[in-house]
Amino acid sequence: MMDTPLLLTPFLERAERYFPKKEIVSRTHSGIQRINYRTWAGRTRSLASALDKLNMKKGDRVGTLAWNHHRHLEAYFAVPCRGGVLHMVNIRLSPEHLVYVINHAEDRILLIDIDLLPVVESIKDQLTTVEHFIIMSDESVLPGTTLSPVYSYEKLVEEGDHSYPLLHDLDEQSPAAMCYTSATTGNPKGVVYTHRGIYLHSMALGMADSLGLREEDVAMPVVPMFHVNAWGMPFAAVWFGTTQVLPGPSFTPKILAELIQSEKVTITAGVPTIWIGLLKVLEEYNISISSLRALVSGGAASPRGLIQAYEEKYGVPFIQGYGMTETSPIVSLSKLKSSMKEFDLAEKINIRTKTGLVVPGLEVMVVNEKGEVPWDGKTMGELIVKGPWIASEYYDDTRTQEAFKNGWLYTGDIAVMDEEGYIKITDRTKDLIKSGGEWISSVDLENALMSHEGVLEAAVVAIPHASWQERPLACVTLKDAYKKLVTEQELKNFLKTQFANWWIPDSIVFMDEIPKTSVGKFLKRALREQLQNYFMDTE
Amino acid sequence: MMDTPLLLTPFLERAERYFPKKEIVSRTHSGIQRINYRTWAGRTRSLASALDKLNMKKGDRVGTLAWNHHRHLEAYFAVPCRGGVLHMVNIRLSPEHLVYVINHAEDRILLIDIDLLPVVESIKDQLTTVEHFIIMSDESVLPGTTLSPVYSYEKLVEEGDHSYPLLHDLDEQSPAAMCYTSATTGNPKGVVYTHRGIYLHSMALGMADSLGLREEDVAMPVVPMFHVNAWGMPFAAVWFGTTQVLPGPSFTPKILAELIQSEKVTITAGVPTIWIGLLKVLEEYNISISSLRALVSGGAASPRGLIQAYEEKYGVPFIQGYGMTETSPIVSLSKLKSSMKEFDLAEKINIRTKTGLVVPGLEVMVVNEKGEVPWDGKTMGELIVKGPWIASEYYDDTRTQEAFKNGWLYTGDIAVMDEEGYIKITDRTKDLIKSGGEWISSVDLENALMSHEGVLEAAVVAIPHASWQERPLACVTLKDAYKKLVTEQELKNFLKTQFANWWIPDSIVFMDEIPKTSVGKFLKRALREQLQNYFMDTE
Repeated sequence: MMDTPLLLTPFLERAERYFPKKEIVSRTHSGIQRINYRTWAGRTRSLASALDKLNMKKGDRVGTLAWNHHRHLEAYFAVPCRGGVLHMVNIRLSPEHLVYVINHAEDRILLIDIDLLPVVESIKDQLTTVEHFIIMSDESVLPGTTLSPVYSYEKLVEEGDHSYPLLHDLDEQSPAAMCYTSATTGNPKGVVYTHRGIYLHSMALGMADSLGLREEDVAMPVVPMFHVNAWGMPFAAVWFGTTQVLPGPSFTPKILAELIQSEKVTITAGVPTIWIGLLKVLEEYNISISSLRALVSGGAASPRGLIQAYEEKYGVPFIQGYGMTETSPIVSLSKLKSSMKEFDLAEKINIRTKTGLVVPGLEVMVVNEKGEVPWDGKTMGELIVKGPWIASEYYDDTRTQEAFKNGWLYTGDIAVMDEEGYIKITDRTKDLIKSGGEWISSVDLENALMSHEGVLEAAVVAIPHASWQERPLACVTLKDAYKKLVTEQELKNFLKTQFANWWIPDSIVFMDEIPKTSVGKFLKRALREQLQNYFMDTE
Repeated sequence: MMDTPLLLTPFLERAERYFPKKEIVSRTHSGIQRINYRTWAGRTRSLASALDKLNMKKGDRVGTLAWNHHRHLEAYFAVPCRGGVLHMVNIRLSPEHLVYVINHAEDRILLIDIDLLPVVESIKDQLTTVEHFIIMSDESVLPGTTLSPVYSYEKLVEEGDHSYPLLHDLDEQSPAAMCYTSATTGNPKGVVYTHRGIYLHSMALGMADSLGLREEDVAMPVVPMFHVNAWGMPFAAVWFGTTQVLPGPSFTPKILAELIQSEKVTITAGVPTIWIGLLKVLEEYNISISSLRALVSGGAASPRGLIQAYEEKYGVPFIQGYGMTETSPIVSLSKLKSSMKEFDLAEKINIRTKTGLVVPGLEVMVVNEKGEVPWDGKTMGELIVKGPWIASEYYDDTRTQEAFKNGWLYTGDIAVMDEEGYIKITDRTKDLIKSGGEWISSVDLENALMSHEGVLEAAVVAIPHASWQERPLACVTLKDAYKKLVTEQELKNFLKTQFANWWIPDSIVFMDEIPKTSVGKFLKRALREQLQNYFMDTE
């Protein structure tokens, strides 16, 4: 067979050649902008020529601090298709961590959204490797800034070479992109994505037994493009010539709902908190999401009630995906096997609440100290993953050895495997509650609480306990209409119908808001810190 | 990213682990046999253990002379997943060519269907490398045979190790399989498929924008498993846990129709002559093919009337595929772009009559001496192909340099490219008719003739001509009901409504049957030989 390397350049060329009129729809500060793939490809080539003029060499890291829009998508290809490495900086990191990741990655060039300029200005003196700042805005006029040397993105693109050649002769194992995980303790850890990894992951996204992303889709990645490449969707969508809707900065659930309706979005992806918010909007406003053929949710488990609402009320398949920064990210999807097609809706939703079936191309196991756990839906173990789009290390980081062992990635997630081979994450290893030598799943309790009609959000954490080692404590946010109407005892009784007595949280604390990480997950570390003396105080 | 090699072993393991109850349905000499993937995987492992006992070493070629059935599918994995190379011998080759390919590939072991035993017995004394003969039949009792040493397939499988380990540590560029092209002149040419090539090709078959093969499909490859791996379908189907229906030896169109109906086949693939035959059966008998979501046709262009009949009368999308032994084989598919969804049926069928749009992962161009031809649907050139599942050479063959140049495979097919990037094959380079310095497409004339209500088959060949260099001559078979009712003049007039005068064949010869190659294509070489003095005689 030909030794054709698996690269990103043919992705762009396919869109440019066969789907020149298909559109990328961006919501920017100055409104909706539509450009087609022909224009986009020309602009991408032009950006590549400008970066080369700034002396971007093979392997050089180019950072982006940007929302989801066509300019970010141009950088997605302009950098790696000339041999550079796109570092998508997670703009929600703390200033200290921003400095850390930009310096650790040794970014030589930064591309910055205009509204994120103040952040970069505030840390500029601590950046040790950045040589050029490029400001992305809708105009080619530069704003006033303390950054230097500084360039206008639009001016560079205007003046560059719109037919600039992209590379076909890179090694497929060359780095193409990198992201840092938002670690809960210590500095963020870097993950490098190769051309080969992104190529195979994109193929996986296109497979009918995975998301089946295709040309006729209108794809809206709500998950940020600085968060695991927006789950890889923008790369694959370019390859297939799929229409993309990029929701830009500071969107609300209502804005998303309106975009789905007006652009006839067929597939969208984001974290559960987004879909909780969208649901509220749909209940309030007369906005149709009937164009959706799939709503993909990941980053955290979705409560059953949420899944049920989308499936039952709106007829939209709610597909949970599992993955992490280290896995590109797609590992598994809660899609139904053909043998489950005759299930009734409740049984189907049972499957949808699971973390899913591994996609073709990867291997997964749930293991404990004895090896793979039985497929009984009960025995917990750690989920481990292997395959060609799974990281093999953290970038220049001694913490590599904690997660990568014997050719497998140890995910740090506790899971069970059912008789059909569906994974169900029951906890993070560090969030698991070890009570009297037994394990209690914080996620199971959270999902149960969130299935109560009055509960909006719930987080369960382990609290040190003198006799039991650890005990669960639940933090709950009630829906507006139920505030002050639902009591602790009522929720405990509700849980008792589903769990053994020793699983029931000793206390349930009502909060106005549960602290969340930069990507919308519950920040359990903060909760634990805030609550760690709770039992000791009240005992 | 992990350096996980792209191998076939995980295909089998995925079916075994996640879809153990899904079935492989084989039509054998003793009737329909059903085995599930768990049983099949155990048998495959057992066969692998038996082959290892026969001292199959890495890189050793193991030949099969077999129809489409579960045993052949077992060999498909038992051989490459232990490092051997599966040589699917085209059983329709002449005895001389059979001897050539088996000796040229240096097959050490042959697996032979019981009804093909006489063929092998007749050439056994000329086979220089074969050390073991394994007879595949439904019983474990050996038939009388002059072959030696000889083994019963079922006995080997019975006595082998059903948990035998398959390999995960092969180089992905290792050879996994090989086929020989049925060359029109000279000896057949060998093409070697690597693990990587088959893996990526299988991913491509699973992509929604390609065939979208998936777990819930019931796939019936009618194309023989000795012909380009049955277009790769059996490999991909195992990976996805797809139900497979393997139609076995000496099937008729009626048997195929009945299998589609009884097994609820959703996707099937074969050459146009098969679908012409099936159509006749559907007109005669009350058999439903409504379970089909796609009928894939390749190996030769399909006449418009055929496509139309399936789409209009039966509501079955008729998808033409293009490929060759050298291309694994999927290169392009006549699927519609989303912008064509609003086309009326006639316009849609126009697209279906084309050779199609290149699938993601490959690059194609139509070139003449000036480079890529304009995308005007008119300018002819040679189709060239590049990509990770395209061969880079013929196995141990000096003819490599004729087809593989500058990193591209020169297909020998003459094509045009339309404004949307759809390829349309107009001829083989050697079948193209060069008349007075202009090119005439034999395929266009054939398709036009076959769209006449009375015509069953038509082949157009070039005949030497004193003044014009070459002129077209058409050979036509009429449908039974039209025999002797359609005249040469009527067909010429029919063509004149569609083509310039100088395209019209000088003569139309009526035949009872048009000679075909071993895989059902018109054997134009034989026709040309038979007719080469036609003009000189009649002028």
